[in-house]
Amino acid sequence: MTNLQVVLREYPQGLPEPGHFELKKGERPVPADGELLSRTLYISLDPYVRGVISGKHLYADRVGLGDVIVGRTVAQVVESHHPDFKAGDLIACDNGWQEYKVSDGSGARKLAADIQPLSLHLGILGMPGLTAYAGMTFLAKPQPGETVVVSAASGPVGSMVGQIAKIHGCRAVGIAGSDAKCAFVTDSLGFDACINYKKGNLVEALKNVCPEKFNVYFDNVAGDTLDAVMSNLAIGARIVLCGMITQYNVSGTPPPGPNLARIVGARASMLGLVVYDYYDRWDEFAGTAEAWFKAGKLRFKEDVVEGLDNAADGFCRLMRGENFGKAIVKLADPE
Amino acid sequence: MTNLQVVLREYPQGLPEPGHFELKKGERPVPADGELLSRTLYISLDPYVRGVISGKHLYADRVGLGDVIVGRTVAQVVESHHPDFKAGDLIACDNGWQEYKVSDGSGARKLAADIQPLSLHLGILGMPGLTAYAGMTFLAKPQPGETVVVSAASGPVGSMVGQIAKIHGCRAVGIAGSDAKCAFVTDSLGFDACINYKKGNLVEALKNVCPEKFNVYFDNVAGDTLDAVMSNLAIGARIVLCGMITQYNVSGTPPPGPNLARIVGARASMLGLVVYDYYDRWDEFAGTAEAWFKAGKLRFKEDVVEGLDNAADGFCRLMRGENFGKAIVKLADPE
Repeated sequence: MTNLQVVLREYPQGLPEPGHFELKKGERPVPADGELLSRTLYISLDPYVRGVISGKHLYADRVGLGDVIVGRTVAQVVESHHPDFKAGDLIACDNGWQEYKVSDGSGARKLAADIQPLSLHLGILGMPGLTAYAGMTFLAKPQPGETVVVSAASGPVGSMVGQIAKIHGCRAVGIAGSDAKCAFVTDSLGFDACINYKKGNLVEALKNVCPEKFNVYFDNVAGDTLDAVMSNLAIGARIVLCGMITQYNVSGTPPPGPNLARIVGARASMLGLVVYDYYDRWDEFAGTAEAWFKAGKLRFKEDVVEGLDNAADGFCRLMRGENFGKAIVKLADPE
Repeated sequence: MTNLQVVLREYPQGLPEPGHFELKKGERPVPADGELLSRTLYISLDPYVRGVISGKHLYADRVGLGDVIVGRTVAQVVESHHPDFKAGDLIACDNGWQEYKVSDGSGARKLAADIQPLSLHLGILGMPGLTAYAGMTFLAKPQPGETVVVSAASGPVGSMVGQIAKIHGCRAVGIAGSDAKCAFVTDSLGFDACINYKKGNLVEALKNVCPEKFNVYFDNVAGDTLDAVMSNLAIGARIVLCGMITQYNVSGTPPPGPNLARIVGARASMLGLVVYDYYDRWDEFAGTAEAWFKAGKLRFKEDVVEGLDNAADGFCRLMRGENFGKAIVKLADPE
């Protein structure tokens, strides 16, 4: 009746390393009346967790030393004293980096079992997918024939942004960090082009790939990539600012941003996106995205590590940009 | 039959000085069929002219050495062979820094004589006024009870932004560069508060003046002021980027902008404004603004120099931020 957990051992300065985390054997909790116990099947590794650890997240409390690392999970209900859940139910919830958690059901969503793998509910059909969907649907509003650029294009948000762009009749251009990622983005995801930002001059590459300039840029990284894309904005361009992974491991004063004269010249809009604002649209999103998936319109790639003892290493690889696809920790299959 | 002009003598590097310009006595031009000759009464001195001189303007051709400096003017028709204009008509036009100009009438707007002083058609009832009106009406869309902040608040754009904010039932907060300007902004223009950015810490001053944070920021300057205001954005804030006077005299690589993480956190929108996009709304704007003015809802301040020989000095003072109110050169009264 144990509960294996990964807890914070030391606060990272800059990039995290596996030694900042440690495995701990806890006791399996017991659900009281109105509560449920669930067993974690998959853990999502996401860049925002770095901000939570440092106490820089907009809402979540900082992770304390010895605390379990937070994270979105797919789990199976083991025992339920909650009217809405029964043993065997598959749920998306916030178990974090541990085998078992007791919850009062808040934040838990029941999942249909006919989506495989279930880990997709942590990727293109989960919070990253909602992020892409909300940014495109409610902020960027791409029109058929427009060109949409997205950074971190092989990741779950980026891959969904480009595929939604294609569904809307747009041209999709990705930016990614290796030739293999770029090949996946064009050949498997169906983007029209993808640029390896680590090779050559990104500003020139963007102009070559897209001489007609960009109508939408969905930014997941900030930094030099944002600056480069801003050199090629079409009149009326919309830039969705979503993640700033290049800043998550920086301590001290945040780095400056791009010169904004180009926003004026292009009459562009720069729009801040926080996915939590769209949680009331989960059902709309899930219905739409699961239908696209079942119709074969959505492809994906996962970067799965097995076992809790590999969670920290997987997270550190994600922070170094070495993952390829949605970073997932697999703990168990459903029963 | 002469035509006094101010021409470019030398391209300025950084801040312009009067020695970069020189007076020249030209010949008064003669209008052909379909043309009109007008006499300049008032010249508008505007920051954008610095960009035209350097060839950095979005549309206007660079001013060549020996060329007359460009500028919006109020003029009176002296002789007309154009069906829409007759001698004596008052017009807003683009005569630039000279006494007389022949034109085919394009870009000329007839002015009602009942607005006094006529130079207002170069300020709050002219292009700066349209800039403020368009940015507020079509981009910022302020709602009653919201707080609107504007930089360069004693200038023609800034003073109009704040007064439009008050007309819309908003709280108006100005930022200006001297105690005298701030006193004018609150006491005469009716803003709720104004901060002298040269005194103390602007971030702290903004928080003190406005603990409830800002819903709209109309930026006329960029640089450190934009950065400071971004530390205090309300959720859903709109930032209108209009002018970047802190950059107009910079040569070489444009300086970096503010860190954009705050745009994400506030779900803010940053919106580029170019006034030329709204020229088709002149009649709507002029009708609205002239009615406000006649109803006593608009106050203004002008910084007038007399005579073409003082135009260069007035422009250089404007570039150094030493003007107080709309910078105008007065050449003559109407006949």
